[in-house]
Amino acid sequence: MFDEKTVLRIPGPTPVPPEVTRAMTHSMIGHRSGDFSTLFKEVQENLRELFQTSGDVAVIAGTGTAGLEAAVYSMVQQGDRVLAISTGNFGDRFTDIARRTESEVLTMNCEWGTSANVQEIVETLQQYPDIQVVLLTHCETSTGVLNDVKEIARVTHEHGAYLIVDAVSSFVGSPLLMDEWHVDIVVTGSQKALGLPPGLALVAMGPRAIERMKEGPAARSFYFDLRRYQKDISASTTPWTPPVSLIYGLRQSVSMILAEGLQKTQDRHRLLRDMTRAGIRALGLTLMVEDDHMASHTVTTVFVNHADEVRKIMKNDLHLAVAGGQKQLAGKIIRIGHMGYVDASDVLQCLATLEIALVKTGYDITLGTGVGAAAEVYVHAENTRN
Amino acid sequence: MFDEKTVLRIPGPTPVPPEVTRAMTHSMIGHRSGDFSTLFKEVQENLRELFQTSGDVAVIAGTGTAGLEAAVYSMVQQGDRVLAISTGNFGDRFTDIARRTESEVLTMNCEWGTSANVQEIVETLQQYPDIQVVLLTHCETSTGVLNDVKEIARVTHEHGAYLIVDAVSSFVGSPLLMDEWHVDIVVTGSQKALGLPPGLALVAMGPRAIERMKEGPAARSFYFDLRRYQKDISASTTPWTPPVSLIYGLRQSVSMILAEGLQKTQDRHRLLRDMTRAGIRALGLTLMVEDDHMASHTVTTVFVNHADEVRKIMKNDLHLAVAGGQKQLAGKIIRIGHMGYVDASDVLQCLATLEIALVKTGYDITLGTGVGAAAEVYVHAENTRN
Repeated sequence: MFDEKTVLRIPGPTPVPPEVTRAMTHSMIGHRSGDFSTLFKEVQENLRELFQTSGDVAVIAGTGTAGLEAAVYSMVQQGDRVLAISTGNFGDRFTDIARRTESEVLTMNCEWGTSANVQEIVETLQQYPDIQVVLLTHCETSTGVLNDVKEIARVTHEHGAYLIVDAVSSFVGSPLLMDEWHVDIVVTGSQKALGLPPGLALVAMGPRAIERMKEGPAARSFYFDLRRYQKDISASTTPWTPPVSLIYGLRQSVSMILAEGLQKTQDRHRLLRDMTRAGIRALGLTLMVEDDHMASHTVTTVFVNHADEVRKIMKNDLHLAVAGGQKQLAGKIIRIGHMGYVDASDVLQCLATLEIALVKTGYDITLGTGVGAAAEVYVHAENTRN
Repeated sequence: MFDEKTVLRIPGPTPVPPEVTRAMTHSMIGHRSGDFSTLFKEVQENLRELFQTSGDVAVIAGTGTAGLEAAVYSMVQQGDRVLAISTGNFGDRFTDIARRTESEVLTMNCEWGTSANVQEIVETLQQYPDIQVVLLTHCETSTGVLNDVKEIARVTHEHGAYLIVDAVSSFVGSPLLMDEWHVDIVVTGSQKALGLPPGLALVAMGPRAIERMKEGPAARSFYFDLRRYQKDISASTTPWTPPVSLIYGLRQSVSMILAEGLQKTQDRHRLLRDMTRAGIRALGLTLMVEDDHMASHTVTTVFVNHADEVRKIMKNDLHLAVAGGQKQLAGKIIRIGHMGYVDASDVLQCLATLEIALVKTGYDITLGTGVGAAAEVYVHAENTRN
């Protein structure tokens, strides 16, 4: 009966709203038609608002990793010194991409579960005045850490370097004021808080980034050359065939977020984060990110005994999926996604399901404790209507 | 964001599984084609299994009420004495339909919240030996009462009368062994535990019913004349244009139930009922149907102060809908549907949502109590894997 029922509480892909699913069933159209230009123009304008930038947003057929590669291959030039800040698995991936360029990659690896230390970054920038590009992950999906983009952007900008931010799993869930904070490139993917299926990378390019790319040499990649995407945006088109259905879905998703209001969307994600963390704490479990200020608004990581068995019970018996740990965290943590098309009752359901799996794997907890604590947070929150 | 998100915990319509939604998008076909015959034949065979009958199942474009009318108008003959047993609003509707026929309708109205008393029925049958047809609601959706079809069918059969059962909201949720128990007609609708959109009435006709209709006069209604439907079933067709898309959905729904196994489907509904009732009791609320043996497997009714305000909070703030009371119960109870495409984690979500609404309307409860009690029932159930 429930073969296809999996309530997705993994950090992406996330549930796709029915409105978005329907939008994607639009009849196929020619991508060099006026119909497509009209669609793309509307999407582009709304994306600028979501990214909080006056720049342009490349819409690439590819996933978040493709977006990161496009950003790095288009922005990093031969001989550049690149500071790659990694706070986990996805920071490492970002670094690996940079290593494929003919640049000098300086790595700053932070302890998993903690965010990047701004003071350390300042010192590194002082030590290496020739750092031209800084790579930073906003929300590190493998650990649930949120990095302080605002502060790191400030010191990077003061240094005169460019900042590229991987916002794949934080986008629209956490504030990121791209132009105001002087972030040059922001990358995200479709399958996180945007609530779309995977297949789209979005790369927002601020004015300084556009300038640098224009003046620099050709990008390392042909397909991922952001200059081509950026140039075509003024003509409301894309350099290569765009994934039309996903772009119809994107239009719907973006318009739903703007209808909710970006601020309200972010408030909702923060509330779901706070509910989840309160529930986990009430159950006596250990949060991987103890400091609330470092904790992601979109994914919560929790140390759990027999983590994979717990996940299996949740998935097989109760049809709700949370993610497991990656690399050295495999089998040690679960990662609960609460991003996109998710509301308070969804978080309560997730915690109720987790509690059952904990009891079934030998935890001595009182059933309902986590749900109750999360519900308390909800009830006492200022504005819980959405 | 959540304009279209309403988790349906009303007693129908219920959530439609994605497999069923997809099945209904099948290209339109001619209803007098071989394609339709093939489809209808498969559905008919599977329906016989679900209804537990060797008879035929009329598939009517209409809703449950249409099915009741078809049954009554086809089975009740001029001058018949009909015993209409009513345990609530839908029993009253059944009675009203019978009153449109040229028969003598004898009513037995039971107190709302209690099931029909078998001894009283026996006495009535003795008192009126000319009762030819008995009308009974299996699950009375307005009160959450489950009537003892098996026993009532036994005494009706002994009396020599025909029994027509309204199983609209109980079908596949509660056992009903049509042939074995000597039930002559069973009526259901598509939008309950079958998990289809509304629009289909199913009327199963047992051998004795088919015999009576064949020998009797023309039915009061042309459209609802079951003889026409029954006659066409052997040719794998329907007398009038059938709702083709819904029948594609029905094929999918029925095959999913048979894949789960009818017994397991019923076990699941019983478990969800037991979880819901345990949760409600732990919250200190009063169940309308106190006796577990009289309690529906598909809908649970609960006395709640400010019931409509509670429902409003659940719906508007937490995007989960439960139903309110009907007639004299308006504003006094909520009705929680747990039928069809619903699992244990869905029931926990519903209770968590209810708890918040209770607190917000002034109830002094400890959040998590109801969820915890329901989860306890789940954990201690024998077979909780589905």
